[in-house]
Amino acid sequence: MVKVVVLSGGVGGARFLLGLKAALGLPPIGPPASEPPSEPTDRRSNTGEHDISAVVNTGDDIWVHGLRICPDLDTCMYTLGGGVDIDRGWGRADESWVVKAELAGYGADPDWFGLGDRDLATHLIRTRMLHEGYPLSVVTAALCTRWRPGVRLLPATDDRCETHVVVTDSQGLRAMHFQEWWIRHGAALPVSEFVQIGADDAQPAAGVQEAIAEADAVLLAPSNPVVSIGSMLAIPAIRRALRSTTARVIGLSPIVGGRAMRGMAETCLATIGVRCEAGAVAEHYGARVAGGILDGWLVHTGDAATVPGLEVREVPLLMTDIAATAAMATAALDLAGLAV
Amino acid sequence: MVKVVVLSGGVGGARFLLGLKAALGLPPIGPPASEPPSEPTDRRSNTGEHDISAVVNTGDDIWVHGLRICPDLDTCMYTLGGGVDIDRGWGRADESWVVKAELAGYGADPDWFGLGDRDLATHLIRTRMLHEGYPLSVVTAALCTRWRPGVRLLPATDDRCETHVVVTDSQGLRAMHFQEWWIRHGAALPVSEFVQIGADDAQPAAGVQEAIAEADAVLLAPSNPVVSIGSMLAIPAIRRALRSTTARVIGLSPIVGGRAMRGMAETCLATIGVRCEAGAVAEHYGARVAGGILDGWLVHTGDAATVPGLEVREVPLLMTDIAATAAMATAALDLAGLAV
Repeated sequence: MVKVVVLSGGVGGARFLLGLKAALGLPPIGPPASEPPSEPTDRRSNTGEHDISAVVNTGDDIWVHGLRICPDLDTCMYTLGGGVDIDRGWGRADESWVVKAELAGYGADPDWFGLGDRDLATHLIRTRMLHEGYPLSVVTAALCTRWRPGVRLLPATDDRCETHVVVTDSQGLRAMHFQEWWIRHGAALPVSEFVQIGADDAQPAAGVQEAIAEADAVLLAPSNPVVSIGSMLAIPAIRRALRSTTARVIGLSPIVGGRAMRGMAETCLATIGVRCEAGAVAEHYGARVAGGILDGWLVHTGDAATVPGLEVREVPLLMTDIAATAAMATAALDLAGLAV
Repeated sequence: MVKVVVLSGGVGGARFLLGLKAALGLPPIGPPASEPPSEPTDRRSNTGEHDISAVVNTGDDIWVHGLRICPDLDTCMYTLGGGVDIDRGWGRADESWVVKAELAGYGADPDWFGLGDRDLATHLIRTRMLHEGYPLSVVTAALCTRWRPGVRLLPATDDRCETHVVVTDSQGLRAMHFQEWWIRHGAALPVSEFVQIGADDAQPAAGVQEAIAEADAVLLAPSNPVVSIGSMLAIPAIRRALRSTTARVIGLSPIVGGRAMRGMAETCLATIGVRCEAGAVAEHYGARVAGGILDGWLVHTGDAATVPGLEVREVPLLMTDIAATAAMATAALDLAGLAV
């Protein structure tokens, strides 16, 4: 049995987890949510002989209409549980938008957030449990008893720790929630800074430090280095755990041929002064031997990069299908010293 | 201008309010919710020269999936605003049930409550505003800016004051929320008592006492005498306001020919030891001159009743359409001493 920890954002991280499960011989997607577990053992977070924990970004989380939304956790849960809208990459398949239209009928703010009816049930249960005092990690585990993602989904933190964006518009400098910038403004407003509100005081959620400490390999999914991976690294105890684990920490570049594979990583990297190149992102994360968090770095074939203190390998990094993604995961595990 | 106050439950009270509006020359149903107000004056709670305040039962209110549901307030708001499902009598027209099905997919309790998607938007806004600290009366007014019911809808109280039911089943005596008994068990469990939890300490919502004190007529809609009207009379200051107003207080019998016109009033009346007869209900409310709350009582044609201290009149009391209901309202206003 190998224990693998993945630091993950939303869509890209979820797809990488599908490939990692396949690489470890697990069915990428669990049984349909409508089917009850066929055997009691199916209720375990991990079946079979391998154990995957995903530490998932919560910096994008937002309260909307009184509901706690966790976009990245839900994207991972729905993707791995077979409930995601595959074309969109997030939210539920066969989604409807009746509640959203009714909220608009009331003129309720915000009107720009995509709150689907199916998705909303998840938020209702989460919000109710949070109000009852359960931490987000316990709530997430409860939601996963339905979706059975086959991966232990751990929120990076149970604390409120949100990414806010300092933007420049006609009124000068002002700050807004990451989601407002990302969704409402389509990331089109010039950004001067990303701020992880609450990161200094945030503690990793229950299980996160233990999972990293006990891992055989720690992988950084090819997620946004600033607002997905970066928001987790801003939590001091997560960075410390990565620096002190006996496992090798291997990252997969989200930059291929100088372009971000998805999302708006270019804008985010430019804001923090990092070139949009695979090697520059690795330098930003830093080698463990030089005070950073990485031992190895996978770049796309042809993206030659030399980073002092890091073992860099070139492999195809396009998640075109599960087989290609599984090959990426296998290469990452291999670089971590695990032959699976 | 006449000022009329109506104490109202859900479906029956809402229909009576339609008739009262017609009797006062107001359009029974406002403009469709999708149309913006044509003139600023349309935003007022009451247009024209008459002024109707409905004091609406909140004893049926319940928290479900973390949302505050106000069945009677919403039935009145949707009915008077043109959004109600007319056949069902409650909830929204063209309703869908996606969120409810998803909650069932999670196995979330309760699974017996009819939570429609359109309806849910109302509960989301209400719950958010309540959590932000607004009292229910302010929330209700905010929701009514969309529905423009043409009647000032006042919750009986802003305090938590719920009807619970003491039932007997295989486990002996136990208490449950009224809605659980009513909806989940179809009112089929034998009841030994109705209890208005919190009524002794509940204060009338802002505007309720003033409306009753300043009214030209106070009408008791033909609603359930126990769990609709009765739950409001259990609030001491509401009973005091009815006893001290200079307006005449006129009730309309919900019992016609010894049968309840809707709901489960027979069961409720039997539980509190009141015969299911128009006269017995009036005696239960009591004449103001004898320590009760009524000055007059309308019974259905043929339901002769003599109640000491009360002026009783026989008129048709079947709310078959708006015209018939308007005639009932006119008769009630007439008995109150108002010619309109």
